[in-house]
Amino acid sequence: MEQAGICQISTVEAVMNVIGGKWTFPILCNLLRGDSRFTEIQHHLDGISPKMLSRRLLELTENGIITRNVIPELPPRVEYRLTAKGKDLRPLFQAIGTWGTTWNITETSTAQ
Amino acid sequence: MEQAGICQISTVEAVMNVIGGKWTFPILCNLLRGDSRFTEIQHHLDGISPKMLSRRLLELTENGIITRNVIPELPPRVEYRLTAKGKDLRPLFQAIGTWGTTWNITETSTAQ
Repeated sequence: MEQAGICQISTVEAVMNVIGGKWTFPILCNLLRGDSRFTEIQHHLDGISPKMLSRRLLELTENGIITRNVIPELPPRVEYRLTAKGKDLRPLFQAIGTWGTTWNITETSTAQ
Repeated sequence: MEQAGICQISTVEAVMNVIGGKWTFPILCNLLRGDSRFTEIQHHLDGISPKMLSRRLLELTENGIITRNVIPELPPRVEYRLTAKGKDLRPLFQAIGTWGTTWNITETSTAQ
């Protein structure tokens, strides 16, 4: 018999509503690994369009998970940084990594 | 400076490829909470179609995360149960719950 307290459906749905969009988890992983520039993040994500990456970064900014910082140089530079709220996702990504490694989840596992 | 070892992009992408589909996280939450029947799971998920639920349950079965068990009664009953691989997702859902609660992520947070 599983435990009722393990997770709340409403919380899981709400969290996935915020960070569950396609590409968002890999984008967050890049940011947690230290990427901060658009081109860096894009470089690490095969197949993402600039439009999709911009949209996801905007959503993450609107949800207070990252900040967009303009560095006043010539030309000006834009850096994305995790907020405390964003950094607090670290345990979630560690859990994903542990599960994926333990059960050998690779690209060849059955796709959605 | 974040840590490179925090997560591997390829693992995150592969894991999301397996469990990242729309509805899959809430379905898994239901199963972790003890639901085992199609109608039980469906009842706890506003708006999911029977077709989508069937498809997601089939994917989870194919990926070895749940088993589909036919109970030989009249009429026969079907129960879905988490495998060890499925139960091993518990820390991930606890991390989602902790983050969601800590940062008060609710239905009204900005949708994807």
